[in-house]
Amino acid sequence: MTEPRYDVIAIGNAVVDVIASCEDELIEELGLNRGGMTLIDAEGATTLYAAMGQAREISGGSAANTLAGASMLGLQCAFVGQVCDDQLGEVFTHDMRATGIDFDTPPLPKGSAPTGRCLIFVTPDGERTMNTFLGAGQSLPAEALDEELIASGAILYLEGYLWDPEEPRKAMRRAIDVAKKAGRKVAFTASESFVIDRHGDDFRSMIEDGVIDILFVNESELATLTGEPDFDTGLAAVAGKVPVLVATRSAKGAVCVTGGTRYEVAAEPIDKVVDTTGAGDQFAAGFLSGHARGEPIDVCLKRGAIAAAEVIAHYGPRPEADMKALMAEKLG
Amino acid sequence: MTEPRYDVIAIGNAVVDVIASCEDELIEELGLNRGGMTLIDAEGATTLYAAMGQAREISGGSAANTLAGASMLGLQCAFVGQVCDDQLGEVFTHDMRATGIDFDTPPLPKGSAPTGRCLIFVTPDGERTMNTFLGAGQSLPAEALDEELIASGAILYLEGYLWDPEEPRKAMRRAIDVAKKAGRKVAFTASESFVIDRHGDDFRSMIEDGVIDILFVNESELATLTGEPDFDTGLAAVAGKVPVLVATRSAKGAVCVTGGTRYEVAAEPIDKVVDTTGAGDQFAAGFLSGHARGEPIDVCLKRGAIAAAEVIAHYGPRPEADMKALMAEKLG
Repeated sequence: MTEPRYDVIAIGNAVVDVIASCEDELIEELGLNRGGMTLIDAEGATTLYAAMGQAREISGGSAANTLAGASMLGLQCAFVGQVCDDQLGEVFTHDMRATGIDFDTPPLPKGSAPTGRCLIFVTPDGERTMNTFLGAGQSLPAEALDEELIASGAILYLEGYLWDPEEPRKAMRRAIDVAKKAGRKVAFTASESFVIDRHGDDFRSMIEDGVIDILFVNESELATLTGEPDFDTGLAAVAGKVPVLVATRSAKGAVCVTGGTRYEVAAEPIDKVVDTTGAGDQFAAGFLSGHARGEPIDVCLKRGAIAAAEVIAHYGPRPEADMKALMAEKLG
Repeated sequence: MTEPRYDVIAIGNAVVDVIASCEDELIEELGLNRGGMTLIDAEGATTLYAAMGQAREISGGSAANTLAGASMLGLQCAFVGQVCDDQLGEVFTHDMRATGIDFDTPPLPKGSAPTGRCLIFVTPDGERTMNTFLGAGQSLPAEALDEELIASGAILYLEGYLWDPEEPRKAMRRAIDVAKKAGRKVAFTASESFVIDRHGDDFRSMIEDGVIDILFVNESELATLTGEPDFDTGLAAVAGKVPVLVATRSAKGAVCVTGGTRYEVAAEPIDKVVDTTGAGDQFAAGFLSGHARGEPIDVCLKRGAIAAAEVIAHYGPRPEADMKALMAEKLG
């Protein structure tokens, strides 16, 4: 087993977030899935965009956000994801590279499905309601996978959202095989209950087979995955099968179970929740930034809580602060 | 003279701002014009973008920003500006319409010069350094001007930046003629000293000829325009020739001279300057929101100061707050 070149290699959706604040009434009027993520088609994207207030565009994508955060925290990272050769693709690519991430998946040619976007409505309580048009992201081909690259990362980080479309799922399965053969760890984020509704059997068998080394879930995903509405029961059902299980609980903080021990961290206090987009993604980034360097689990959890608190205090799913300095200050 | 359909019709650059924070050193390394606006070509845009950190994209353009603010403050507004039929053009168009502005200038066809963008580097003191690739904006043709539209606005608001490229200048000259014949007011924002360096003679003769009814300048623009380094001397040199002269002075507030009387307003106190982009634009928006309704000049100035304070407290050149509510609260 050669020394890995990267700390984390992620495969995920390559989307640009389109973020507008809105009143609670608009969520109802438009019949949106409040607080959730819904897949929409090109037509749906056009209709919803027209109903949206003035917006800001910020690169997003769950695993891409985590990777941006991890990179800003000093990890060596590479990303695999599908954009189109269009202006939003250029924006996404720029922002990945600007945080020091290697991102070389060839874009689809102009005129193909456009780069994906996620229309995010943020209500006054800071809750985000996401509507994703995957666009080019759906066509990430398994053949385009650079196996040498995948084998060169200590951790392969996969996004549940991308398990839904068929082509990228194949690519991710192949990446898992490559990573496992190279003796690497596989980290997985469940992303959203609807993904587990559709692909829970896949996830459960990967867990049973010991494929997943690090699993990130939130409370409702854990409940959907295990069929156990009680958090602790759900946790117990998975804990023994995944070496590192991380469950985030919004304002209640987060839990990690590893080696039979349960660790907890409180949520980091903040003045005002502006936009919860990216909270889970940045928790994962913070956690991984410690875990990849072998730090104790309680420190990894604290790093996660600090990173999550930073991102929900402003619009957009990626850190704006100097994250290394913030960590140094908060961890003391 | 028929009743105007719009309070303000603006002609300006249609650009999307690309905003990234950066350290002071980067401004020096890249040899940028700190605090100013510099025109760049497509190649320059590519080079600078590559040197820029992760960014957010927010619709911009000086007059377009002012119009967005004015519309959010309740004025009926229409915009004339040139985008391309590309993704950034779609973003710009959406954001104008989302604030209630009529914007129907036909986009250039796909494959033409792309929609303009302004690369903005924001240093830790909140100062913005702008680098604009005008793209499609340079080709706003005089022939595309809807004269009926121009004649239907109580105030025609023009952006100095757009005086620089030849085609839009012709369009603006024609719009001025149309507006004047229809008995409308012409408002002009000087935009930037370099524009006055290049086109000062045009501006001075328009002022001498009584074409400009409302003029917005900042301190350095006033000095360049008049050749008088002393603020009060400069003000006196223009005051008699422009019915409403508004001079903004950053932290020192603003002055308006009209009907031989000088009015002043202090800058509105704020906690922290995040990004000064749009300060002048929103001052103009606030001022116009009062002036278009015939409010007293001291109230118009106060409105300007409130709107400017809102925009410099966050990233991006357009208001994020509920501006009507903010005005109601601050004006009491």
